Amino acid sequence: MKKIAIFAGDGIGPEIVASARLVLDAVNTAAGLHLQCMEGAVGGAAIDRCGDPLPPESLQMALEADAVLLGAVGGPQWDALPPAQRPEQGLLRLRKGLDLYANLRPVQIFPQLLDASPLRPELVRDVDILVVRELTGDIYFGQPRGSETGPDGLRRAFNTMVYDEAEIRRIAHVGFRAAQGRRKRLCSVDKANVLETTRLWREVVTEVAREYPDVTLSHMYVDNAAMQLIRAPAQFDVLLTGNIFGDILSDEASQLTGSIGMLPSASLGEGRAMYEPIHGSAPDIAGQDKANPLATILSVAMMLRYSLGAEAWAERVERAVLRVLDSGYRTVDIASPGTHLLGTRAMGQAVVAAL
Amino acid sequence: MKKIAIFAGDGIGPEIVASARLVLDAVNTAAGLHLQCMEGAVGGAAIDRCGDPLPPESLQMALEADAVLLGAVGGPQWDALPPAQRPEQGLLRLRKGLDLYANLRPVQIFPQLLDASPLRPELVRDVDILVVRELTGDIYFGQPRGSETGPDGLRRAFNTMVYDEAEIRRIAHVGFRAAQGRRKRLCSVDKANVLETTRLWREVVTEVAREYPDVTLSHMYVDNAAMQLIRAPAQFDVLLTGNIFGDILSDEASQLTGSIGMLPSASLGEGRAMYEPIHGSAPDIAGQDKANPLATILSVAMMLRYSLGAEAWAERVERAVLRVLDSGYRTVDIASPGTHLLGTRAMGQAVVAAL
Ligand SMILES: CC(C)[C@H](C(=O)O)[C@@H](O)C(=O)O
Ligand SMILES: CC(C)[C@H](C(=O)O)[C@@H](O)C(=O)O
Repeated sequence: MKKIAIFAGDGIGPEIVASARLVLDAVNTAAGLHLQCMEGAVGGAAIDRCGDPLPPESLQMALEADAVLLGAVGGPQWDALPPAQRPEQGLLRLRKGLDLYANLRPVQIFPQLLDASPLRPELVRDVDILVVRELTGDIYFGQPRGSETGPDGLRRAFNTMVYDEAEIRRIAHVGFRAAQGRRKRLCSVDKANVLETTRLWREVVTEVAREYPDVTLSHMYVDNAAMQLIRAPAQFDVLLTGNIFGDILSDEASQLTGSIGMLPSASLGEGRAMYEPIHGSAPDIAGQDKANPLATILSVAMMLRYSLGAEAWAERVERAVLRVLDSGYRTVDIASPGTHLLGTRAMGQAVVAAL
Repeated sequence: MKKIAIFAGDGIGPEIVASARLVLDAVNTAAGLHLQCMEGAVGGAAIDRCGDPLPPESLQMALEADAVLLGAVGGPQWDALPPAQRPEQGLLRLRKGLDLYANLRPVQIFPQLLDASPLRPELVRDVDILVVRELTGDIYFGQPRGSETGPDGLRRAFNTMVYDEAEIRRIAHVGFRAAQGRRKRLCSVDKANVLETTRLWREVVTEVAREYPDVTLSHMYVDNAAMQLIRAPAQFDVLLTGNIFGDILSDEASQLTGSIGMLPSASLGEGRAMYEPIHGSAPDIAGQDKANPLATILSVAMMLRYSLGAEAWAERVERAVLRVLDSGYRTVDIASPGTHLLGTRAMGQAVVAAL
């Protein structure tokens, strides 16, 4: 029996998670997985309930679970709070508390949605990128951080970008191993011409590369990577990045597919894991049964693969999503003339039917 | 009489600057500007000559000049040097030494090159963005920075992202004034949900906005901005960013135009200014008369506008570039079937002829 902790979060979170639950529950029954699902509060929902974006019982629930499924957190009603008390802090403390240092964000093209991409179809047709983003270090967590009024009477604020070689080494191994199972190319992103932190990043990645002679390593400055992701995205196989550069580049890369609403992610640590769509909480469409649940459903597929030892079922869910798209079903973010519009819940039901 | 300091730099730097000089010299003569041009060394060229990417006499020359024209710096032969001794450091020390805090990067679409854009033409047709990037602060210059071996025996490296309110305020004013002369919209980029530094950024920009009631201010997280720049780039007018986010986003935005070889920049301080193409030194095509000099030529136009009080001549240069494109002349980076291929030098001559 495996335990799954479910945090729906804010905005569209509850809807997309409910839709993905239809799929998870169907697989659970059909495959006899004996999953035990528990629901907890995180993000703005938790702030509203108890003033803490990650209440101790939620962290405890996550620590005891075999896997976590998360919707999305954040919203304008909590924007006035300082960073340390915001909904996002619940997510960041969860990542850190579970030591989920490896964030896998596959950027996969759905041929059915090629027309939704802002890029010319011939540039994106062959795109198949795995962004491997470090998730528990960098400027997200570096100390010292804060704000103060200086002796000159001026307000001043600061954050620290920092990595040690152990942090870099373990995420590099994840990247290289992933590349071995793919097209055997890894591009490591840094700003080694300016930042000492990313110079160490480049050094350690280069050292780790020696253990993977079958993988071709290249290095790219982050500004160039932001450019190449649009200019010639099919050149990338595994893209290995630190936390903040990965945040920016993976969101950019998501647009190649036409909709951020299609892309899942897995955040892995030693024996722990969390699965979430890469999109945000989209407060503007919350509660309207409009949100695309497919990124969350595909995150469930990743959970089946990486945490539940159910690779065959992972593939079945992924194929079911493709079949639903083939049938012309679309949520509004990916709709085009001649397709059949579905709401969040109905899309989940369609995937279950296609399983 | 005005003094111009010219630093050709590395890679394609000398070629593109020589080509742009043809244009500058032609305008100088025709307009009777009485410019006095001095040439100095910076970047890898200066390292090779004297071991310093910004020799004191080069900084002195820049400080005494009314404007600086720079080609590009950097190359693989200096990659093994630590950040503090690299060619890029010459550029960064020049920016800092002249206090060039406002980097203006107009992202303009050339209708003649619409087919070169990786984006669908209907998305980029109406793009006209001015990226206003802070250039002398942020993690580029923040202290402490460096690397060390910790008590645990692990190598560790760190950089500091830092801004004070005065730094933010002065670049915000540049952004708002630019917006007033344009479509009166300013989008400020931050990661205020995670980073205290950019939370102060958002606060101060919001304060400054009160002095510009005719400008509509919006805020966007950097990851979302990276996405929106591809999804719907025409939504932006002025994009106001810190140094590192601006580095990434302006390179990304450059691709909307189809070639980074077309985009100029101005870096302005109080009474000082430097002009450079936004592209790099492209060592792979250096010395082959292949590089596109138009970004540098358009940087000369910005110099005529902002430093030499010759707005009419700035516009003439810009119109000459358009006319050359209309005539079908292209360097290889922007060539397409049916166009007429020119080398770096011949492209400069073509612009002079079209003046
Ligand atoms: C919500 C936010 C804290 C988060 C991040 O910056 O990591 C999000 O953008 C993401 O990429 O998962
Ligand atoms: C060469 C490098 C130091 C520079 C920067 O990062 O600012 C360049 O990328 C730029 O954008 O002008």
